[in-house]
Amino acid sequence: MKVELVSVGTELLKGKINTDNAYLGEKLDSIGLAIDRETTVGDSREKIESVLHEVLSRSDIIITTGGLGPTFDDLTREVMAKVLKKKLAFDGEVMHQIAAHFAKRDLEMPKDNEKQAYIIEGAKVIPNKVGTAPGMVVERRTETASKSKVQKVSVIIMLPGPPREMKPMVEEVVLPYLKERYERKILKKCVLHISGLTESAVYEKIKEVVEIERRMEGGILRFSILAHLTKIDVEISGEGENELLVDEMLHKARQEIYDCLEDYIYGEDKDTLESVVGGLLLSKRLTLAVAESCTGGLIGDRITDVAGSSVYFKEGVVAYSNEAKKRVLGVKEETVNEFGAVSQESALEMARGVQRISGTDIGLATTGITGPTGGTAKKPVGLVYVALVWPKMGVELCREFRFNGKRKEIKESTAANALDILIRALKEKD
Amino acid sequence: MKVELVSVGTELLKGKINTDNAYLGEKLDSIGLAIDRETTVGDSREKIESVLHEVLSRSDIIITTGGLGPTFDDLTREVMAKVLKKKLAFDGEVMHQIAAHFAKRDLEMPKDNEKQAYIIEGAKVIPNKVGTAPGMVVERRTETASKSKVQKVSVIIMLPGPPREMKPMVEEVVLPYLKERYERKILKKCVLHISGLTESAVYEKIKEVVEIERRMEGGILRFSILAHLTKIDVEISGEGENELLVDEMLHKARQEIYDCLEDYIYGEDKDTLESVVGGLLLSKRLTLAVAESCTGGLIGDRITDVAGSSVYFKEGVVAYSNEAKKRVLGVKEETVNEFGAVSQESALEMARGVQRISGTDIGLATTGITGPTGGTAKKPVGLVYVALVWPKMGVELCREFRFNGKRKEIKESTAANALDILIRALKEKD
Repeated sequence: MKVELVSVGTELLKGKINTDNAYLGEKLDSIGLAIDRETTVGDSREKIESVLHEVLSRSDIIITTGGLGPTFDDLTREVMAKVLKKKLAFDGEVMHQIAAHFAKRDLEMPKDNEKQAYIIEGAKVIPNKVGTAPGMVVERRTETASKSKVQKVSVIIMLPGPPREMKPMVEEVVLPYLKERYERKILKKCVLHISGLTESAVYEKIKEVVEIERRMEGGILRFSILAHLTKIDVEISGEGENELLVDEMLHKARQEIYDCLEDYIYGEDKDTLESVVGGLLLSKRLTLAVAESCTGGLIGDRITDVAGSSVYFKEGVVAYSNEAKKRVLGVKEETVNEFGAVSQESALEMARGVQRISGTDIGLATTGITGPTGGTAKKPVGLVYVALVWPKMGVELCREFRFNGKRKEIKESTAANALDILIRALKEKD
Repeated sequence: MKVELVSVGTELLKGKINTDNAYLGEKLDSIGLAIDRETTVGDSREKIESVLHEVLSRSDIIITTGGLGPTFDDLTREVMAKVLKKKLAFDGEVMHQIAAHFAKRDLEMPKDNEKQAYIIEGAKVIPNKVGTAPGMVVERRTETASKSKVQKVSVIIMLPGPPREMKPMVEEVVLPYLKERYERKILKKCVLHISGLTESAVYEKIKEVVEIERRMEGGILRFSILAHLTKIDVEISGEGENELLVDEMLHKARQEIYDCLEDYIYGEDKDTLESVVGGLLLSKRLTLAVAESCTGGLIGDRITDVAGSSVYFKEGVVAYSNEAKKRVLGVKEETVNEFGAVSQESALEMARGVQRISGTDIGLATTGITGPTGGTAKKPVGLVYVALVWPKMGVELCREFRFNGKRKEIKESTAANALDILIRALKEKD
């Protein structure tokens, strides 16, 4: 089953990040459909047309995103109709939904939105609950060989580009539809998230165990290693006919990776550093407060991305000025003068301060130089201290880091390492 | 000049977001090279080979990212050599750089990294200052028609996938190289960032002015409208032979858009809400403190993404618990009891509190229900209050929002709107 994605939009060729493909890739993967190829093309009639011709000639499932909007540069609907040799027909029901969208918001419907009520003949409409562009599913029958009369059915799914509109359509209509139509081999995977090692170091440690494909009794195991700015992922996927055998195969491979990397694996699959932190704090009934200088609120932001975080996350102080470090957190004047605001001593006093004023179990603090200016020979840009105090357990620790990269990368690396330090402390005191 | 990007990596087909293409799109656009098409393909010898054959047959500039790493699933180097019918040759200088990379970090070089010292015959090496995978530039001469003996030169540029390694190569080697080789028509653009309107409303307001292409004396003007979660962009690009005429044409078009949308444009080009906030605060010599509940630190994080923000951003309080709202910010017990922590009254007391304790000019506060639980019929998920106080100017205001979307989207929308409110207040009191 060949699957291809086509993204339409000049903005995607000029600097806009495409998150739709990543989302669709993950969702299709979850139902065992592997994408063969992704193509992005601009808002040009000729170029869209030539890409659609190509993908229709070689693939079974084609999913397009983008180009269904109301404006002059939204062309996917028209060009697809042309390539499929179908007409666009006005759909009263869709028009009604679009009108209701505006009415509900007390807005007058712009005339151009009428264009969105024109649907490719024979297409199934996917209602848009968030915006105005309806999605479409078209099943196209072609004869594979002129004599055999065997019909090949390809499926064309057209989705709007904005993720908020596209995602509910995928969840509610597209995935159930594809699952029913193409349910096939059992395909499962697990991803192990690793911090504290480089990509080569991870590979070095697991190279005896992994190979690109391992054929086994239960099916095929595949391994891949992915490097991100603040973590390395090891992905294991298993494919086979029998769910139990696939599970067993995966379970065994997962254990082999754990044997090589135990101390460095902080989570699996959907786990994030902040969700692991949340799980550990919840299960131990502990509370947390953070004092952030160089991360500017990023740690609080990440922690509060987790639903229910208000149970364990009580407060944060973004002590960006030295005055705030002293007044709010009680960092001593002498400490700042003698060691500087970016020092082990200040970091520890910040962590102690935020733990004390908030009355939480644990205090976590960051201070550092994110640049581009403000660095010196002794304290260069990228120098960061992360401190953690946990009085009940007698824990007081501070780690120094020297990160490379730009301001935003240093902030990201600091936040990830602070969460990693917290996880290690929570696990050690188990 | 046909330009194509090819991204290699199974992870990109399974859920990893591709940011390399967005970066390259923006950079190439800035030197007047428009990307024709982007293709993403997995780590499979056959599939990479067939994509490379296709793109080489139809395009003049091909840039690949990914697949240059040391592990078994990094195949771009080998497959490209095969497709170009060239050998891979060991390069001692590159080997030396890779070895130095590990030596500098006091690490032993894994054996597998040796693979990265094999370079396509005749390629120019792009040194990797951050990691181990070198980039390559290959110029390939082919005869366009067998009789004419006219040589066509296509350029193949191979870059590593990790943005930290790829970006410096692009800045330092690839862009200067392409600029020198392909400098062509003057191409300039400007982007206007808009908040407070929907995409259709923006289009409605400017439709008399914009069209997909407008041919003028100075060249061609192009318009496009891009919808993001928290802003709409209007992009105007101008192409022509004469820089002065292109500038003039762009300037005029820009003014036309301003005439239609004045009140809603908060910035241009590289401006972000946080950079505009920073510019305004700096020029007015004002200071800011924020009290965040539902945004959890995101506003502080965004504000401190701007270099030099410590001049005007003094501190933030992430008052996630009601106890912190009362103790740190002085929100009254009665206020929380009578109106709730998510109310206009609490938001205003939070803003007043953080302004008072920090002694800054302005206090900004957020409180709301980000879900997925915690909503009620009267106070549903998505209900958010943003308050701003600026005592010297006698400003005290609070706005209510009802956002749709998931937790993260509600946080993002709240932060964007809080910054927008701050910008409007700063501009109004000019």
